[in-house]
Amino acid sequence: MAIPTVIQYVLSRLQEIGITDIFGVPGDYSFPINDAISEHPQIKWIGCCNELNATYAADGYARIRGAAAVCTTYGVGELSAINGIAGAYAEHLPVFHLVGTPNMLTQSNRALMHHTLGNGEYGMFQRMTDPVVCARAVMTPQNAVFETERLIAEAFYHRRPVYMAFPGDYANMPVSGSLQPLAERHSDPKNLEEAISRILNALENAGTACFLPGILVARTSQQAQMTALIDASGLPFATMFMAKSVIDEQHPNYIGMYDGKLMNEEVRAFVESCDLVLEVGTLLTDFNSGAFTAKLDPSKIISIGHHHVQIGEKIFFAVEIGDVISGLAVRVSKKSSNRMQLSSGVAEVNPASADDPISADFLYQQWERFLAPDDILIAETGTASMGLGFARMPAGATFHNQTLWGSIGWATPAAFGASIAAPGQRVVLVTGDGSHQMTAQEIGQFFRHGIRPVIFVLNNSGYLIERLLCNDPDIEYNDIADWQYAELPHALGCRDWFTTRVTTCGELSGALAVAAKNNSASYIEVVTDAYAASPLALQLHNTFRNLYRS
Amino acid sequence: MAIPTVIQYVLSRLQEIGITDIFGVPGDYSFPINDAISEHPQIKWIGCCNELNATYAADGYARIRGAAAVCTTYGVGELSAINGIAGAYAEHLPVFHLVGTPNMLTQSNRALMHHTLGNGEYGMFQRMTDPVVCARAVMTPQNAVFETERLIAEAFYHRRPVYMAFPGDYANMPVSGSLQPLAERHSDPKNLEEAISRILNALENAGTACFLPGILVARTSQQAQMTALIDASGLPFATMFMAKSVIDEQHPNYIGMYDGKLMNEEVRAFVESCDLVLEVGTLLTDFNSGAFTAKLDPSKIISIGHHHVQIGEKIFFAVEIGDVISGLAVRVSKKSSNRMQLSSGVAEVNPASADDPISADFLYQQWERFLAPDDILIAETGTASMGLGFARMPAGATFHNQTLWGSIGWATPAAFGASIAAPGQRVVLVTGDGSHQMTAQEIGQFFRHGIRPVIFVLNNSGYLIERLLCNDPDIEYNDIADWQYAELPHALGCRDWFTTRVTTCGELSGALAVAAKNNSASYIEVVTDAYAASPLALQLHNTFRNLYRS
Repeated sequence: MAIPTVIQYVLSRLQEIGITDIFGVPGDYSFPINDAISEHPQIKWIGCCNELNATYAADGYARIRGAAAVCTTYGVGELSAINGIAGAYAEHLPVFHLVGTPNMLTQSNRALMHHTLGNGEYGMFQRMTDPVVCARAVMTPQNAVFETERLIAEAFYHRRPVYMAFPGDYANMPVSGSLQPLAERHSDPKNLEEAISRILNALENAGTACFLPGILVARTSQQAQMTALIDASGLPFATMFMAKSVIDEQHPNYIGMYDGKLMNEEVRAFVESCDLVLEVGTLLTDFNSGAFTAKLDPSKIISIGHHHVQIGEKIFFAVEIGDVISGLAVRVSKKSSNRMQLSSGVAEVNPASADDPISADFLYQQWERFLAPDDILIAETGTASMGLGFARMPAGATFHNQTLWGSIGWATPAAFGASIAAPGQRVVLVTGDGSHQMTAQEIGQFFRHGIRPVIFVLNNSGYLIERLLCNDPDIEYNDIADWQYAELPHALGCRDWFTTRVTTCGELSGALAVAAKNNSASYIEVVTDAYAASPLALQLHNTFRNLYRS
Repeated sequence: MAIPTVIQYVLSRLQEIGITDIFGVPGDYSFPINDAISEHPQIKWIGCCNELNATYAADGYARIRGAAAVCTTYGVGELSAINGIAGAYAEHLPVFHLVGTPNMLTQSNRALMHHTLGNGEYGMFQRMTDPVVCARAVMTPQNAVFETERLIAEAFYHRRPVYMAFPGDYANMPVSGSLQPLAERHSDPKNLEEAISRILNALENAGTACFLPGILVARTSQQAQMTALIDASGLPFATMFMAKSVIDEQHPNYIGMYDGKLMNEEVRAFVESCDLVLEVGTLLTDFNSGAFTAKLDPSKIISIGHHHVQIGEKIFFAVEIGDVISGLAVRVSKKSSNRMQLSSGVAEVNPASADDPISADFLYQQWERFLAPDDILIAETGTASMGLGFARMPAGATFHNQTLWGSIGWATPAAFGASIAAPGQRVVLVTGDGSHQMTAQEIGQFFRHGIRPVIFVLNNSGYLIERLLCNDPDIEYNDIADWQYAELPHALGCRDWFTTRVTTCGELSGALAVAAKNNSASYIEVVTDAYAASPLALQLHNTFRNLYRS
């Protein structure tokens, strides 16, 4: 068998770790990568409208598949993608960024090529990406075998993006050498044993306890082990916003979302009343802590982090989250149940008349009821996700949101990426109008790939979350162009889609009934008052000074 | 009078240097900037759909006005904009990037806020921008007065972007101190005198000579002085691609575009036959040199650069382009004319029948005839601009293209920005379909601001320039989603626009006749064969190995 080229070698390894689709925009410097992807029998090229959208799509794919790849060209392409890569870094997603660069000969000559700054410098763009990747390399025939394994290992250890540059003339040269995949990193046995023993001991001594499983449980693919730990312990669990649906929300031990003092007071009271709270891969960021109103007594918390465990003042390093969860699951004793009743989720509302305008309460209740088992719900940053966060997800259904990075526009391409990752599941996208305008052109890709999503665009005439957080809600900069959203799919090439615009409760219910049953994609523009906000969004409005004074 | 706040001070200075519109996307960390812009009586907030588009719009505005500003929020916003800032750097445009950041109190606390990477680090994003700006500062009450003057001076001296970060709590504090604007930098008198004397001497001794005015003549606003120099000297001038229309193409001394061996053989022969070629602010990049086929004998060249003059081996530093042009204009003697006849421009073609499909030759001829005096033509990177580059521009009409950075998608928002900059002039946008898909949502902004552009979308079913440069032109990655372009303006909220799709020569001529006379905006989808390429694009296809081996 022929020795693979640099790019062929990398692609074969990416395919082995589960990446069968690569998003991107082609470019002349990346032709060797683009060609190799198109020629690869098990990997599909998924062209996107622009590089940021492609990177958001890769983000969505990685949330489902555990890893993803995006390919861009030098300079113009990679820099357009860099915000999406930063998002994958913040949100703990291993995204492989493959960048085609000018030939080494061109670089050595310091030639004044297109897509450069015209100063003969060729190393700057890869250095710009440094803060938002956990590792990077220029792939050469000599280092490709080793660097591929190093970058895969780093991407999975940190669950962060990596950057791989492919000079055009190197990409098609045969690799030299060979290497087995690097061994998965495991915990220090002594630290692990001591951490687990102490956790078990603390559990024994606690009268009441609960889990707060965090986003890293999903990112490290520990959902089954975490569920086994919950089952074995018999303990209740809440989740915080970023980790919503990490463990199935139909699990009998689920008590609802803990969002500090902002929402679900009964969940807050219960969690904060426990003698012991076990945080598992939880990130205590602003929007994941009820704007810092989640005030847990440090002496009652054990925090199982990604690579460490903290118990009181004591930190055990070199201890991996998966090893801790698995170790606890086999040794924990069942505690007598002290769970509370599941919190009620979104409020029950019945409009007086089908002609009523669509209130926030009615909308979020209708959306909650619309969700079906195994749905993948992509919820854009803003008031819409703040409402949907309190919907109870059906069995197997998952909720995805960019809670830390919060780059609006993310959801539309991320829903496309998730659809490519999970062709057997229904993807539901809920986006605000302002967010949708950022990246709306990617709608055309769903049709191109025969995908039938359900898309809701919440048209509330501008950036509602900003109206709620700024000094003057009516100030001009929160207004946006007045699109005819329901016309957009057809203009973007989507044929035979169910598209509609609803302005009343009756129209909304009718459209949801059609979308639930039809065999085509659906795109529904939901028009509400400019200030029809979800309860959490209103709470943030009332307390926003807490958020920014931190 | 009240002491201005940090942001008020900066805005007042930006307005004094000619910036009366600021493009951007609002965000919670940038509310103090957004508020101050909305409150400023002489500056308008121009909201865009996303930050990259806003930055492209600022690029287009700076090409017309000489400077521009764009405002984004921390992290997500500034990183989305960074490719546009890099483009402004490469293309020598002073764009002020105003970034709203979290409060200093938040930063000091290393709080885990949204739009951060969740690691408590707050200085990374501004360092990421370093390679693509000529200066940057965090604006504080103590430094704002000085830093504003320094950044303005740097932006104008280098004609490059600068970055200004505004922590939310600092932005609204009063500035301390005061400072006069820094003096414009002038040439070293001795070096200037020697450079000018030598140039005049070389001109005296040359039997034949010509000018090659470059893009920096426009960027430094020296068009009138350069025209005066041409007039005084009586010498002919050609331009290269990047500098097309820097000097009026109706000037009697204009001989056409010099594009090395790729095009216009008679211009090449003339320029290369001259005893002396005076390059004035010319950048010899790949697409500005006929893919490096412009081979001028170094001993026959005098190069007047941005801040230096090179004559043979001798370089005079600290000599400014404007001082050299002005100094030459008043002292040069008229040389007997040795000019050649103006090159013919695009080929004359008459279709056999109005039902003929639209050929490249017919299309570029029709477009050339459509242009009117004082038009601003924004020509997207790709085959379309490669065709239009050889159209002769009417009096006062200018041609704009991102020849060095070449980030496709630029043209649509840049046309919007140019329209805001020059409300009295007609803006004509010519974009390819693949490029347009990158940034098409910005079309809605034209209507929102009452602008009536003429927009041509060349629908040739994908990335044609890539088909011409890659190994297999039909390869899948050069295909794009099949949009109904002519439906797009209405979906994006543009009402009462003339929109149409033309597929034959007769339809094209008819649509052009309507667009020339109607009083509304026009959006014309021009459908051609997938391989209907302009002559320069075909030449690049034939010689592309020269380009990449450089």
